[in-house]
Amino acid sequence: MRRGFPIRVQPSILKRMMTSRAKTLTLDTINPHAVNVEYAVRGEMPIQAAKYEQELEEGKGKLPFDSIVWANIGNPQQLPNLAQPPLTFWRQVAALTEYPALLDAPKETRDALFPTDAQERARELLGAFGSVGAYTTSKGVALVRKHVAEFLERRDGYPEDIENIYLSAGASQGILTLFQVFFRSGEDGVLIPIPQYPLYTAALALYNLEPIHYTLNPSEHWEPSMKDVHAQVVAAREKGIKPRAIIVINPGNPTGACMSKEQIHEVIREAYREKLVIFADEVYQKNIYQSEYPFISFRKALLDMGKSSNEEDRLISETVELISLHSISKGMSGECGRRGGYFQLTNIDPDVEAQVNKLVSVSLCPPAQGQIGVDMLVNPPREGEPSYDLWHEQTTSIHDTLQRRSEKMAEKFSKLPGVEIMPSMGAMYLFPQLHLSKAAWEHAKSLGKKIDELYCRELLDATGICVVPGSGFGREPELQDDGTSFSYFRTTVLAKATDEFIDRYGKFHLDFIKRYQDRS
Amino acid sequence: MRRGFPIRVQPSILKRMMTSRAKTLTLDTINPHAVNVEYAVRGEMPIQAAKYEQELEEGKGKLPFDSIVWANIGNPQQLPNLAQPPLTFWRQVAALTEYPALLDAPKETRDALFPTDAQERARELLGAFGSVGAYTTSKGVALVRKHVAEFLERRDGYPEDIENIYLSAGASQGILTLFQVFFRSGEDGVLIPIPQYPLYTAALALYNLEPIHYTLNPSEHWEPSMKDVHAQVVAAREKGIKPRAIIVINPGNPTGACMSKEQIHEVIREAYREKLVIFADEVYQKNIYQSEYPFISFRKALLDMGKSSNEEDRLISETVELISLHSISKGMSGECGRRGGYFQLTNIDPDVEAQVNKLVSVSLCPPAQGQIGVDMLVNPPREGEPSYDLWHEQTTSIHDTLQRRSEKMAEKFSKLPGVEIMPSMGAMYLFPQLHLSKAAWEHAKSLGKKIDELYCRELLDATGICVVPGSGFGREPELQDDGTSFSYFRTTVLAKATDEFIDRYGKFHLDFIKRYQDRS
Repeated sequence: MRRGFPIRVQPSILKRMMTSRAKTLTLDTINPHAVNVEYAVRGEMPIQAAKYEQELEEGKGKLPFDSIVWANIGNPQQLPNLAQPPLTFWRQVAALTEYPALLDAPKETRDALFPTDAQERARELLGAFGSVGAYTTSKGVALVRKHVAEFLERRDGYPEDIENIYLSAGASQGILTLFQVFFRSGEDGVLIPIPQYPLYTAALALYNLEPIHYTLNPSEHWEPSMKDVHAQVVAAREKGIKPRAIIVINPGNPTGACMSKEQIHEVIREAYREKLVIFADEVYQKNIYQSEYPFISFRKALLDMGKSSNEEDRLISETVELISLHSISKGMSGECGRRGGYFQLTNIDPDVEAQVNKLVSVSLCPPAQGQIGVDMLVNPPREGEPSYDLWHEQTTSIHDTLQRRSEKMAEKFSKLPGVEIMPSMGAMYLFPQLHLSKAAWEHAKSLGKKIDELYCRELLDATGICVVPGSGFGREPELQDDGTSFSYFRTTVLAKATDEFIDRYGKFHLDFIKRYQDRS
Repeated sequence: MRRGFPIRVQPSILKRMMTSRAKTLTLDTINPHAVNVEYAVRGEMPIQAAKYEQELEEGKGKLPFDSIVWANIGNPQQLPNLAQPPLTFWRQVAALTEYPALLDAPKETRDALFPTDAQERARELLGAFGSVGAYTTSKGVALVRKHVAEFLERRDGYPEDIENIYLSAGASQGILTLFQVFFRSGEDGVLIPIPQYPLYTAALALYNLEPIHYTLNPSEHWEPSMKDVHAQVVAAREKGIKPRAIIVINPGNPTGACMSKEQIHEVIREAYREKLVIFADEVYQKNIYQSEYPFISFRKALLDMGKSSNEEDRLISETVELISLHSISKGMSGECGRRGGYFQLTNIDPDVEAQVNKLVSVSLCPPAQGQIGVDMLVNPPREGEPSYDLWHEQTTSIHDTLQRRSEKMAEKFSKLPGVEIMPSMGAMYLFPQLHLSKAAWEHAKSLGKKIDELYCRELLDATGICVVPGSGFGREPELQDDGTSFSYFRTTVLAKATDEFIDRYGKFHLDFIKRYQDRS
């Protein structure tokens, strides 16, 4: 079966062959769309921070700080500065489903370790899953989807068909799958807010889809301007791009802004007029910090239009295609590591739904413990049940802590020279605006860096605080006529030692301002 | 902000608008490559079987069977016919990592529930993960990757750099990610065996890559023919396709064949000559049933060539790009629901590796319990440790049961008229060949079905046994000159009631033969 390859070759020729033979896979020969992907929240800053952390662990090098503060990513259970301890009920149920023999331990033993409602929940879930080691249906276990449907009905006041609900390995996985099913490479465009969560630009780049940016306005509480949305749709069409969907992140990431019902209706009407599918990324729906800005779901807003006396609204309610996404990684659970979430489809063509169903089956099924997490999320202990008090205390405490940290950090930021900030309404981030000098801009330029990249890198180098430049979220620095600039960065509000964080940060900022003072 | 949409429209006009307004997402407007995807193991047969199962549960309809036998997918822990109980050590460690408070229970209590080595392992993993609710690095926790590297060294005799190891949400996720990073839509081709695991054709269709089929020959123990591989590469090039990689499934799915070292070296040499990257899908490496056909990894075979006295072999060993995949879903663990696995890169360009690292970060991280599963897989209890005896007993029993079932089923199949079968060397499937009548072919044709689809559907309708037609694996039925045909189906060997399974099946088969007897 060997076909004419010379077994005996002169070593010198072999050597030449070896050096001249390029790899099959090189940057020039792999998928160029993959090469084009950028993903800042796991980009330069965290990579450098990880290097510093390793240096600190190995005790080598002389760094001006003794720990890394990971404020680059919403990872609430991350150590050492664990911001959110896991919810006890969740973990009890998870442990029992992992090792059901615990349910057969003597009653005294198991009741000492697990409240009876956690045992009951585990039994119910095991009844539905069989074993957490088995594949489930690709959409996820029907019982959990039923609980999601009930949750949606309690939240919005409208029942839901469990067949419209897909469990997923986190909201990100849902978005990646749906983009892949719905959109045509090299043809379609998707409207994304600027600033945005970088998953969206990463997914669009990977699938060779056109990002159509619409601006969130910092001077208007980071609200989207419908005028701008419309202008962008028109401009995209003129360029031959087919706008097909609009992404809305509510509460906002990185902005923390919460949309009013009126704003949501504006988006829905624009989507109707322009035939855009709406993706409502609502993973921060429980991270709400100002009672005057409550969370309102796109689903509720859309279905409410069906009760309108206005016929057009009723028509819109039955027409506009909506994908609503939720996750166990945020909120009060912060269970990122399990990879759980769901997406729910409204007004989607059944033939298209069948394609989604087929495509999720290629990845077999979402992780069992992610699915169980979704069950905990949508069906928490209720008043009167043994686990309720502890669950309530833990979730309230986590919520209040995040709210307090967010307020405290925003307040302290706002007192620093050259920093402006909108107090956070929701999510787990702050997105302060920096007004920096001409000297700083020029120094950044001389290094081939953006001003926000310079600032964040110097912050990391000086303090060990790892945040992400605003340009990583698509919000580019703006050079002013006088040579100064406005730019942004995103920080989580998860860091435990808030006071220390703000002190370290504040000192750095004042020093930065001083070092790059413009001479006038 | 409203722009000229007529608020008040005649109801009749609105009605017309409503009916004429197509959905934004329809089969004609979504990604055509997604529409083209086929995925038989979760296709027609299991969908119909699920309907029957629901009818049985609801007690309605009159079906000629009282349970579904799920033999369509390698899902060892699936109930009701749970073929593989979970390994106790795995589940104990998983439970402890989910609910670490158990480690703080009084020593007497916890020692009664958990062997000390399970407690130690959980503590070690918690040290590395922090919390299983936190995101890990996108490649997976370093400690687990270190254990994978040690496993590879024990298995193959060569050390491995942990940076070449990526944990993944099962082998499928790894393949989907790597195809996406490596190959260029509309340009590149990938060699896949026929018959093959349908994930490969699904991934290729989705990413608009060209499948290049090479044949596994049933009359030669399902060995690949290198002549055919080469001919297919040449033919593909002539059609303007760029062949870039070859997929090898060893032990084979659906064939169960195990490759010899000589065969593996043939593949490696061909890959070298034709500049193909090798994907070695080795998820069944522990499912080996015949001692004369042991599992040999591609990695070992490739690295062994580096010790050859032949300079060409040494060159090949340092050149050929290899991806080796493994999973916790198969083997003796069968932990499909956790979604865990890894892929390991050999001879991959560091710049390309960096792209892989970037792309996996878009999905954030593999599920924590999937990663913990990989740790159990590669680092099981050792002799002398408290959990060893039970672990050894359980894994041996599972292995022997699968082997026995596989042998028994193959033997019984082979005695049926018109059935030919190769005794399984490995994996968890049998792939019998059917020789069916002209009458059966013509009946299938009259229904617009393939002969194997007709056969499998009638099997399901008559017995509740759910298997997958060979054409779902790319092995199409072959019409003979006399009007009879050869075709295939795949069944798992997981069904618990093997005797009952084979009885139900055997009766059906004889009846099928009789019903479609050719009149001569």
